[in-house]
Amino acid sequence: MRVAVLGCGNVGAALVGILDARSEAITTQSGARIELVGVAVGDLSKARPAGVPTRLLTTDTRSLVTDPAVDIVVELIGGLEPAGELVRTALEHGKSVVTANKALLASPDGVALRSLARDQGVDLLYEAAVAGAIPLVRALRQSLTGERIERVMGIVNGTTNYILTKMAEDGAGYDEVLADAQALGLAERDPTADVGGHDAAAKAAILAGVAFGYDVAGDDVFCEGITALGSSDAAVAARFGYVLKLLAIVERSGDDQLSVRVHPAMVPVSHPLAGVRDAFNAVFIEGEAAGELMLYGQGAGGLPTASAVTGDLIDATRNLLAGTTAPTPDRRPGRLRPLGEVRSAFTVSLEVDDSPGVLAQVAAVFGNHRISIRTMEQEETGEGAQLVFLTHQAREADMQGTLRELGGLRPVRRVGSVVRIVGEDRRA
Amino acid sequence: MRVAVLGCGNVGAALVGILDARSEAITTQSGARIELVGVAVGDLSKARPAGVPTRLLTTDTRSLVTDPAVDIVVELIGGLEPAGELVRTALEHGKSVVTANKALLASPDGVALRSLARDQGVDLLYEAAVAGAIPLVRALRQSLTGERIERVMGIVNGTTNYILTKMAEDGAGYDEVLADAQALGLAERDPTADVGGHDAAAKAAILAGVAFGYDVAGDDVFCEGITALGSSDAAVAARFGYVLKLLAIVERSGDDQLSVRVHPAMVPVSHPLAGVRDAFNAVFIEGEAAGELMLYGQGAGGLPTASAVTGDLIDATRNLLAGTTAPTPDRRPGRLRPLGEVRSAFTVSLEVDDSPGVLAQVAAVFGNHRISIRTMEQEETGEGAQLVFLTHQAREADMQGTLRELGGLRPVRRVGSVVRIVGEDRRA
Repeated sequence: MRVAVLGCGNVGAALVGILDARSEAITTQSGARIELVGVAVGDLSKARPAGVPTRLLTTDTRSLVTDPAVDIVVELIGGLEPAGELVRTALEHGKSVVTANKALLASPDGVALRSLARDQGVDLLYEAAVAGAIPLVRALRQSLTGERIERVMGIVNGTTNYILTKMAEDGAGYDEVLADAQALGLAERDPTADVGGHDAAAKAAILAGVAFGYDVAGDDVFCEGITALGSSDAAVAARFGYVLKLLAIVERSGDDQLSVRVHPAMVPVSHPLAGVRDAFNAVFIEGEAAGELMLYGQGAGGLPTASAVTGDLIDATRNLLAGTTAPTPDRRPGRLRPLGEVRSAFTVSLEVDDSPGVLAQVAAVFGNHRISIRTMEQEETGEGAQLVFLTHQAREADMQGTLRELGGLRPVRRVGSVVRIVGEDRRA
Repeated sequence: MRVAVLGCGNVGAALVGILDARSEAITTQSGARIELVGVAVGDLSKARPAGVPTRLLTTDTRSLVTDPAVDIVVELIGGLEPAGELVRTALEHGKSVVTANKALLASPDGVALRSLARDQGVDLLYEAAVAGAIPLVRALRQSLTGERIERVMGIVNGTTNYILTKMAEDGAGYDEVLADAQALGLAERDPTADVGGHDAAAKAAILAGVAFGYDVAGDDVFCEGITALGSSDAAVAARFGYVLKLLAIVERSGDDQLSVRVHPAMVPVSHPLAGVRDAFNAVFIEGEAAGELMLYGQGAGGLPTASAVTGDLIDATRNLLAGTTAPTPDRRPGRLRPLGEVRSAFTVSLEVDDSPGVLAQVAAVFGNHRISIRTMEQEETGEGAQLVFLTHQAREADMQGTLRELGGLRPVRRVGSVVRIVGEDRRA
């Protein structure tokens, strides 16, 4: 089986190493010897890690994806273009494609590429695009195909989980922890894609396709990052028995609608997702028959990502030999539920004047919007008072209306954090 | 695709329900309509849950497994015989087989049946045999085929995990919690298979095959249950930052040897396995490239087990249509490492006379056997003293020698619990 690899960064170099070191086991498992016939790079003169055979390097990427002798193309360039055009060309030339490119898969082009692969009768596999080495996509594609999945919730961004873990455990502030993470190489110099939730949104879009058959683009996903969170939010979480996590949530929501969203969430400490620390990823799946499942592991890094790519490469090889393709989700282009219609419980922090009657005024606003209060705590801060409310489940639109009205209330000095509470409805 | 189901208990009835309710999705995913052609039962007159079609029930099991019109046999009878003979006959007649029968798979017959399936070029799939609905076997067979797996450690018995969770969280004693578990239907009236560790040992043997390609029988697995544990052990665990878990451990251990064992373990509270509560199962996998992975979910119950069987059934159907079979582990019949050669850290509890010089005597015994002490705590109990030692890593045989010598020491009134410490060597 002749394989071309596009891109030779961390993941590409790790993949070349695994294919070499594990050659015998991979041949046994896939049923054919996997021969690396070319590695496309942008710059031949750049130094490569030991083990990457120089004779295979080429800058002529287009020849690799059109070469009739190539059976499988592994795309590890990342980003939308030229990766998208190269994947399309490879599929058009009847090659199976393995990719780790979440941005591409979550773009409108990603939907078209999945259709193209189906029409061409070849594999487009992307285990590495969501949650790195965790065998999530294969579990959803294969193990759970008979399952009616109700909800998928994941910690799918390691950078933000690292930041939130340090904020919770060390009591440090957001800016300080971010700077540490950048120094450790766990956050990019421009961290926007991670801390703004956009990376998680792309993964949520891909999960909507794999678990529910919906064609969703990353840009269609409601996305709220962690930049507005501070150490007081971590303290509120701890006080009420929660842990702050950035979650990608995909769930059925009445009448064949799907809610796909990314936002910080208060997760009960007893919930399996609450124990997922540092840069680890985990995805919690709720199915009608299977009940609760959680898959946990390393979401990023050269070796873990290359491990997932290797699994896909073996699958693609076996499928080519058998003349078949991996199962693809049954496509059900349905509607996305507008965020305003989604129901959540919330924590709401307010800074208010410390004077009689304020609580009654504030409570009346919640009541006017049909939001029921579960718990309230008041703390005098010296200059005023901080109120923290935990609500019962309420429509998002009603909460937004409440917040607007609270913001205009004279004794309310500041509407602080508003965080959705998630995961309190476990059956088990 | 014509399917015969042998056995119609909890799992069988749940499977029939899923095949009916999810018929459309299953057909789309498997590529063929799955037609149930017979359900073998022992007693036609017994009442069956609604939804099990009476016209399909038969007591003529042998006809089903030899009928040329049957493509796939699902064995849900359990136990060694007649299940083993029926599976063998089905395989000999060229049928693919899906089973949830851990006892059969972990028996010497299980090895022969796996060989037979390979020789016949048909599938023998058993996702449901280990950790219920958790897509573990498929992950090991497929996603991680390119991976060099170093260790697999699992909480694979829900009954014992429930008992240990209650002992830790409610401070209750073993007998009391077991009685509660029996009343709740979480433990059998004769709980030996669970609390003695034998159920977990069968699963460890199966994991040794799937993850490492070793042919191991359940009877070859060192097996220590939880019956000797008391609330003082849970207290020792809590005092030193551990949680008590019954673990099935399969790990590489030098020179192509494999250590396969089941025993209670002190697991650090920060370890992902420590947070697995109640009757849930979880399997922690350490791979060279993938790093740490954990798969968590419901390990038993009719619906979760039937969910796993359904996934296998879809796989078997797709493979039959494509003329292929699921990847089987590369078989490497290697040696099992004798327990005496395995290295662990330990907690050791001793009841001793409360008199000067006792500690020196006891410490000398550890030293004579080259066991290094990490921590010691002494508590006066009124009549004497309780000593708790935490050791550094030591050979099991040296620890056994130490315990024998300590037992013969005059001021040692009783050698209490000795529990291995596991999971302190995490890289991440």
